Amino acid sequence: MIGVLGPEGTFSEKAARRLSPGAEIRYFRDFEEVISAVEVGDADLGVVPLENSLEGSVGATLDSLLRHDVEIVGEINLRIRHCLLGRGGAEGVRVILSHPQALAQCRGYIKRRFPEAELRTTGSTSHAARLAQEFPEMAAIADAEAAGRYGLAVIERDVQDSDENVTRFAVVGRSAPAPTGRDKTSLALYLERTEPGALWEVLGEFATRGINLTKIESRPSRRALGDYYFFIDLEGHASDPQVKEALARIRERAAVTRVLGSYPRTD
Amino acid sequence: MIGVLGPEGTFSEKAARRLSPGAEIRYFRDFEEVISAVEVGDADLGVVPLENSLEGSVGATLDSLLRHDVEIVGEINLRIRHCLLGRGGAEGVRVILSHPQALAQCRGYIKRRFPEAELRTTGSTSHAARLAQEFPEMAAIADAEAAGRYGLAVIERDVQDSDENVTRFAVVGRSAPAPTGRDKTSLALYLERTEPGALWEVLGEFATRGINLTKIESRPSRRALGDYYFFIDLEGHASDPQVKEALARIRERAAVTRVLGSYPRTD
Repeated sequence: MIGVLGPEGTFSEKAARRLSPGAEIRYFRDFEEVISAVEVGDADLGVVPLENSLEGSVGATLDSLLRHDVEIVGEINLRIRHCLLGRGGAEGVRVILSHPQALAQCRGYIKRRFPEAELRTTGSTSHAARLAQEFPEMAAIADAEAAGRYGLAVIERDVQDSDENVTRFAVVGRSAPAPTGRDKTSLALYLERTEPGALWEVLGEFATRGINLTKIESRPSRRALGDYYFFIDLEGHASDPQVKEALARIRERAAVTRVLGSYPRTD
Repeated sequence: MIGVLGPEGTFSEKAARRLSPGAEIRYFRDFEEVISAVEVGDADLGVVPLENSLEGSVGATLDSLLRHDVEIVGEINLRIRHCLLGRGGAEGVRVILSHPQALAQCRGYIKRRFPEAELRTTGSTSHAARLAQEFPEMAAIADAEAAGRYGLAVIERDVQDSDENVTRFAVVGRSAPAPTGRDKTSLALYLERTEPGALWEVLGEFATRGINLTKIESRPSRRALGDYYFFIDLEGHASDPQVKEALARIRERAAVTRVLGSYPRTD
């Protein structure tokens, strides 16, 4: 049973169905609930968005991964094509509803086509579609499939600001998969800000061992301005000798070195 | 005349008044309009939020700084204390309005105290306060001062998720200030993702010259997943010999090296 953000029709569910077409799906109210359900065994796996090519990291997911004892066991890249869904045509639209990430991915479109519209955030894109059923002046930004599910018309397709709109989802579980020879490892690092050059030294542990980084992203620690966690993805498994050695050296230096998971690469 | 996000009562205006208490203020609808007004001479200076200690970079500002020919000429750190403002008490609140950044800074509070409330995004915190005037079931998250200005009561004070809630504002102008001996330089870098270790090498140009970085933050390039701009702040002026030399070496290597400004440090 796979946990995802609900109600039915979210992009998380679409990613989960790509992972396992016949799996039973259970819906949760937010990403933290999905991750926490996996931790306590209420779901076998969870599928949550990690980052998007237009908007970057999904902060709520990264924060939850740090707080809960779960492992990233896989990844799924899904091309996101947003549609404007509603009961009528574009003329009557006064309110646009969606998840904050989806509104941000369509910021340019909304400003251009509906400069006067009121924007309301919802817990998910499909929740927006469900609400838009009730009022003709509301439109939702969601997946085309949500139109059929919630009895709405597709007012406009491909309203995301760029066709290069891809979301990377993490598959979250309780036990780490064995190395496949083509793996990726996700890390969270916290360096004391009082040490200049610390990030450079950490990156050097990877660079000098020929370990490729596929992502480096910073995220506020929420402690003070200019104080960050770094989220790093690298090619290799945490049990590979070179990666193991680099991590051991980094642990001597970083205040927090947390392996979020090693899992098969999709790209 | 200083341009800020309007209507009156935003935190941007508060930062601008700290910079220059008696200055004439002109209000714009979004950060891009503020920056573009400075570029074409419709405002002498602009004050826009750059980053927040809880939520990180303000993407819309960074994107606009890359698109317009302006200089960061100063910075202002402002402690942000959000209040819940409304016409009545907490009991009647069904809808919470605010700027997306403010809603995110109060995410935990809203979830705890108003789990069922509908969230609507507005162009600014003061815009939310102006709207909340009209309907008793609406409350706005905004500065306490906006309560007086828009005839609202303070329902609850300090509703941000952490008291370490500081926003760093950039002062934007058309001409670079002269070095003061205690300056900071802001850069945007774009590295080809096909070059592993490129970020490490770039950071090395600073580390080996003893140049301290006060910030490094990544932001999606909006071209592809895993493709980033890096926003770096360093201690020193772009005309300092060491900084100049490091920048020259980085320019040979990075696809884009853009100095956003050198300006006096506040901390």
